[in-house]
Amino acid sequence: MTEALTPDSPVKTDAPTSGNAAQVPETPELGTVPLTPEQVEAAVHSIADRSRQAARHMGQANRAWKDRALRAIGVALKEQQESILAANAKDVESGRSNGTSAALLDRLTLTPARIDGLVAALENLAGLPDPVGNVVRGQTLPNGLRLRQINVPMGVVAAIYEARPNVTVDIAGLALKSGNAVILRGGSAAGHTNAALVTILRDALESVGLPADAVQTVDQFGREGANVLMRARGRVDVLIPRGGRELIQTVVNNSSVPVIETGEGNVHIFIDESASEDMAVDILLNAKTQRPSVCNTVETLLVHSKSTVLPAVAVALRSAGVTLHVDSRIQGALSGAVDTVPADDLDWATEYMDLDLAVAMVDSLDDAVAHIRKWSTGHTEAILTNNLANAEKFIADIDSAAVIVNASTRFTDGGELGLGAEVGISTQKLHARGPMGLTELTTTKWIVQGEGQIRG
Amino acid sequence: MTEALTPDSPVKTDAPTSGNAAQVPETPELGTVPLTPEQVEAAVHSIADRSRQAARHMGQANRAWKDRALRAIGVALKEQQESILAANAKDVESGRSNGTSAALLDRLTLTPARIDGLVAALENLAGLPDPVGNVVRGQTLPNGLRLRQINVPMGVVAAIYEARPNVTVDIAGLALKSGNAVILRGGSAAGHTNAALVTILRDALESVGLPADAVQTVDQFGREGANVLMRARGRVDVLIPRGGRELIQTVVNNSSVPVIETGEGNVHIFIDESASEDMAVDILLNAKTQRPSVCNTVETLLVHSKSTVLPAVAVALRSAGVTLHVDSRIQGALSGAVDTVPADDLDWATEYMDLDLAVAMVDSLDDAVAHIRKWSTGHTEAILTNNLANAEKFIADIDSAAVIVNASTRFTDGGELGLGAEVGISTQKLHARGPMGLTELTTTKWIVQGEGQIRG
Repeated sequence: MTEALTPDSPVKTDAPTSGNAAQVPETPELGTVPLTPEQVEAAVHSIADRSRQAARHMGQANRAWKDRALRAIGVALKEQQESILAANAKDVESGRSNGTSAALLDRLTLTPARIDGLVAALENLAGLPDPVGNVVRGQTLPNGLRLRQINVPMGVVAAIYEARPNVTVDIAGLALKSGNAVILRGGSAAGHTNAALVTILRDALESVGLPADAVQTVDQFGREGANVLMRARGRVDVLIPRGGRELIQTVVNNSSVPVIETGEGNVHIFIDESASEDMAVDILLNAKTQRPSVCNTVETLLVHSKSTVLPAVAVALRSAGVTLHVDSRIQGALSGAVDTVPADDLDWATEYMDLDLAVAMVDSLDDAVAHIRKWSTGHTEAILTNNLANAEKFIADIDSAAVIVNASTRFTDGGELGLGAEVGISTQKLHARGPMGLTELTTTKWIVQGEGQIRG
Repeated sequence: MTEALTPDSPVKTDAPTSGNAAQVPETPELGTVPLTPEQVEAAVHSIADRSRQAARHMGQANRAWKDRALRAIGVALKEQQESILAANAKDVESGRSNGTSAALLDRLTLTPARIDGLVAALENLAGLPDPVGNVVRGQTLPNGLRLRQINVPMGVVAAIYEARPNVTVDIAGLALKSGNAVILRGGSAAGHTNAALVTILRDALESVGLPADAVQTVDQFGREGANVLMRARGRVDVLIPRGGRELIQTVVNNSSVPVIETGEGNVHIFIDESASEDMAVDILLNAKTQRPSVCNTVETLLVHSKSTVLPAVAVALRSAGVTLHVDSRIQGALSGAVDTVPADDLDWATEYMDLDLAVAMVDSLDDAVAHIRKWSTGHTEAILTNNLANAEKFIADIDSAAVIVNASTRFTDGGELGLGAEVGISTQKLHARGPMGLTELTTTKWIVQGEGQIRG
């Protein structure tokens, strides 16, 4: 329905796309670029305007062309693996000498296996259907007007994220597949790596005849560049923060650009009176220990005071290395059979992302719901029960992106829910809620076709 | 799928809903309440928290109950028409003595006929399907998990608008029908009228057993109240500004709460070389003169230099009282046959909302697209053409909420596009784009049901 360009069509650019040398300095020493705030604003706006131009071409590239670009990026990443790893080694070395924690260093580090993972993700993206052009709804009106509402790309997508260079490739791939241009602001601690990756991405786009400016970075402008990006309403169509709580809150509080808030998951499981012991043990072990560092892992367990499964669940979790932060009633019920530490309000609020679990006793479903309403981040909550009315009440009362009955909270995931790829997990209610796939990086357009109809 | 309450179910409130006397002073003298900013913040947060409580009840009320509330509001508006008109007369009198323009006074004024219109709109709303509970998509996964993504209410909807008291009833009705609670901030110039209307709305809700706090106002806290509302992220789920450009920009620039930007329409029609004269005349007359004060009326006409229809279109528009603001080429082409005034860049940027039309000549479809990209607000653009390739190219190249081929721009309207009711016309890309119906006041929730599934 849109005039799709093909790989053989000429790419018409209103302005010549410049090479990326000027835009991505080889050694971006963030914060040291001697520009005034006004100069940074002008430079970032210029990047956004080039992104808008590039977005027009990306939006009209057909699926075959976009998939060719994704595969070209994958090939280039492997071909230039050594230079990527060399750039990454500089960042890791800087981080180590700055006293960066082992966990953050691990997230910062690229390895051949991790680059293989990025390439595999790009190949997976290339295999997914194109969200652009999908007809959302349509009808012919009594007056003969033909209506269609179709998915079209957002246009200019921006991302602000922490020092995880894999996000650079990941978010760029998702944005390109959905027909957008992307402006990246990675963590300064990954500056060398991101600069190398952005160069590779841009070169690969050009190699298949798509505009290099579909991928740009504002890393060279440091924090001020990020500030301009957050206020560039009209120039940036959507801004996605990816990272920890502090980063996301900073972006939310300082943006006039539309933001999709992602990720924070203070996830609860409520074991109702009627839940079976086997199911409770299996699901808690899976939800807590399969991959504790991600957002859909359980952080608080609520146990009905009449449930008999607590000892078995506690023993299983403790045996798996989980530290149990328990309230006094749970401590009393376990009567020393399992090692625990005392919990306070900080525990109910904490997303541990580690082998830690807060555990509280409640006397009713309503009490469980009240606890969840008070402490939840609206990501995922689950009930384990054999009581139909309680399951239905939990589904109705819980106001979270995903509500799960008798299954692991680890299923709140774009791949598991059949979306194919995941942009992130939205914990806000506008536009997208829960796992976001490629379609969530599109908007819609109404197309109305007639032969002279006027309104009566 | 959710446990729907029925009109006969008891409404369980965690806190008693107070009467509205304390909340809506009979004579809200805005800005004169002697509260510190901290006190205003605490008071508005308390209102938002009561709104959250009320939203939980509204979200579980079934359609029959919500429709009963809408009809009760309609009955009460007619029964208490005299007191509404008396309150409105005070506002109109104040406005007149303050030198308010005739156009604004007209928007401020309620009449028995206008109240009838509000009642009819509520009756129409009651006749519409309930968006809540609609299944967006769903499937059973290979592991047996049953997935459903359903529409659920946003929760707490806020609206900031200008002195048009009909918006008070209109937006409250839309929010209630979609299962939300609403917090209103009307223009201070309509303070007496809005206070009277809010009291009636709250009493009507209570009369059918729904929480009065589902409708609240922060008018008594003046501008500071609006500021707190705009920053109440987490307490307010979505904020809808309704009004002119200045109000919308103020809300967009000062909100950390998710905002849906509505309304501004600098609408274009491009007459291509192949458009027929009859169609061009009919559509331009309809799009400009049928209701010039609304956002889907055409504001700029672009005419292909090889088109022959310009004289007929210009004569017809001028005869209908339209002032034509033309560029020099149009002036030359008309060679004095029709009265015109010269146009400059301000005209290309202006949403006249009156019997004024900017007219420019272009040499190609690409030039028309370039003009539109430069000046459009992304609301609606139309092409009149008999050339299929040009129609398809226009559809693909124009990045607006609605793209129309050979029909009037006045069709960009929730009623005309079959949405039943209209919350506003979104000119942003996130969440909703174009006319917004009741579904756009909902979000979604994933419901995952299993029997012990864990992730492998």
